[in-house]
Amino acid sequence: MSLDDASTKPHDRLGAYLARDMEAVNVLIRTRMASEHAPRIPEVTAHLVEAGGKRLRPMLTLAAARMMGYQGPYHVHLAATVEFIHTATLLHDDVVDESRQRRGRPTANLLWDNKSSVLVGDYLFSRSFQLMVETGSLRVLDILANASATIAEGEVLQLTAAQDLRTDERIYLQVVRGKTAALFSAATEVGGVIAGASDDQVSALFTYGDALGVAFQMVDDLLDYGGAAAVIGKNVGDDFRERKLTLPVIRAVAHANAAERAFWERVIEKGDQREGDLEEAMRLLARHGALEATRAEALAWSAKARDALTRLPQHELNDMLADLADYVVARVR
Amino acid sequence: MSLDDASTKPHDRLGAYLARDMEAVNVLIRTRMASEHAPRIPEVTAHLVEAGGKRLRPMLTLAAARMMGYQGPYHVHLAATVEFIHTATLLHDDVVDESRQRRGRPTANLLWDNKSSVLVGDYLFSRSFQLMVETGSLRVLDILANASATIAEGEVLQLTAAQDLRTDERIYLQVVRGKTAALFSAATEVGGVIAGASDDQVSALFTYGDALGVAFQMVDDLLDYGGAAAVIGKNVGDDFRERKLTLPVIRAVAHANAAERAFWERVIEKGDQREGDLEEAMRLLARHGALEATRAEALAWSAKARDALTRLPQHELNDMLADLADYVVARVR
Repeated sequence: MSLDDASTKPHDRLGAYLARDMEAVNVLIRTRMASEHAPRIPEVTAHLVEAGGKRLRPMLTLAAARMMGYQGPYHVHLAATVEFIHTATLLHDDVVDESRQRRGRPTANLLWDNKSSVLVGDYLFSRSFQLMVETGSLRVLDILANASATIAEGEVLQLTAAQDLRTDERIYLQVVRGKTAALFSAATEVGGVIAGASDDQVSALFTYGDALGVAFQMVDDLLDYGGAAAVIGKNVGDDFRERKLTLPVIRAVAHANAAERAFWERVIEKGDQREGDLEEAMRLLARHGALEATRAEALAWSAKARDALTRLPQHELNDMLADLADYVVARVR
Repeated sequence: MSLDDASTKPHDRLGAYLARDMEAVNVLIRTRMASEHAPRIPEVTAHLVEAGGKRLRPMLTLAAARMMGYQGPYHVHLAATVEFIHTATLLHDDVVDESRQRRGRPTANLLWDNKSSVLVGDYLFSRSFQLMVETGSLRVLDILANASATIAEGEVLQLTAAQDLRTDERIYLQVVRGKTAALFSAATEVGGVIAGASDDQVSALFTYGDALGVAFQMVDDLLDYGGAAAVIGKNVGDDFRERKLTLPVIRAVAHANAAERAFWERVIEKGDQREGDLEEAMRLLARHGALEATRAEALAWSAKARDALTRLPQHELNDMLADLADYVVARVR
């Protein structure tokens, strides 16, 4: 990574700018993930928390609060809250997806067991709940309660929608909000609320987080099919093999003729996948411009995120958040 | 069941007294367990919620609030909150315990899958969280956040403590609080708080719920070994076969000689159980008076629950709660 500011990743610039706040968040996380009685809890949590995730969500909360001029202590609580919720959902997701690797390491459900992942996830949810109660803000509690419900609903929806060819873009967006965008938007929104931002500013912060999260997830789903152009360093076809109906396939299914539809029914709905099917899927995605269309969607959401920032004060952090919105789609630009 | 008041179960008398409130709770539960987007959610929830549980926890909240003269609408929200938390923990418990039956019906993890149980449980937690935010009481939120943490911590603790002969009564009590008493005490406490009861009254309500929950769980653990006297209609030895270290065994282990200790190590810690081992365990429990001692403990907790009620106003509901404290230990009296 270059030391030249312009070529440094926006995420790293945010991290450098917010370093003192992030240190306070890390201390709070380590304190609160402890358990007097159950040593299994910090073991499991540390495995995940200290695996070096990007801490993007807590940084969004800190950035929103600081950009709006917050000087109190509670942005740290809220950032830790958001990271705990994220960690709890990862623990439960790994059980649900029967995952074996996360952040390049074996998952907790593999190292310990599903029981520990379920219950430690519940513990972290409770801890996040305690942290937000400490802020004393009912509005913050309301936002995070609603985000939690959207997350859980999106996850359940994905169970049934992922392998159902009737899943359309509206349902896809609901799933994406659950998987990613709801916590992004809650992260930025509560940062503004705790800083006493105006309703319009809070709404802009929400829109930024929401659009950033949607763009982020769409890029992920696009790269799973190699992106609109050739991209190196990402496994292609994981979602296909797991029969997850993401936006590229939804687009291709919408334009499928009878034979193509039969193909998608076989490989996604029935899960009967054979040699050469991924290549055939890639051909169909190309034929209907599905990757290009997904890319255009992701860019539009990124632009929406940038646009929301114009309703917020000029600030060094505002510029970094704008760069971040560019950065999440840079891999497919 | 007799119509004669004195011989009716206190639980049924509470239900009759609180019938209108409970109807409002049931309506709220049905409304809030719906999901616009994910039909799997009400399917799974209805399976459990409508299986005819005793609804003891929401009744405790309603009784506490009404006894303290509450006239507002939020005791209904809190009662539904408590039932949602209870239902969510049941869904997760069944995954953790790999249970196949609950309330005489196949469990949700068997009818659907573990994924649905984990995620629908998360959804119900979020919904409960939204309901309590609606009450606008930060004190209520604080109590329920702490109870949630105690519940999750107790459940994780049980994972490691259950098959470890070093588990003592202090740890057992912590597990029992997590499994049962924390939600009982939160249920009664928030009923008092929402009614504006004094600190001493709220503390008495907490103590009642806590002691009732501990007594309730101890009786359950005692009956799993047949009770202090012969009791009909309960499977004996489930905890033994599942290698759960409950109070009767903890007492027997505390007084074990070397040979007896080797026995407990083999059957509980190593899980090497053979023909006749349950009978041998029963003999050891009898030899050390472990069932009698557990029974005495349960009676003491029941008395503690009754005693707490003397710090609360005279009221028809107060009498019913006192009878309930007697009733939970009646099976072992």
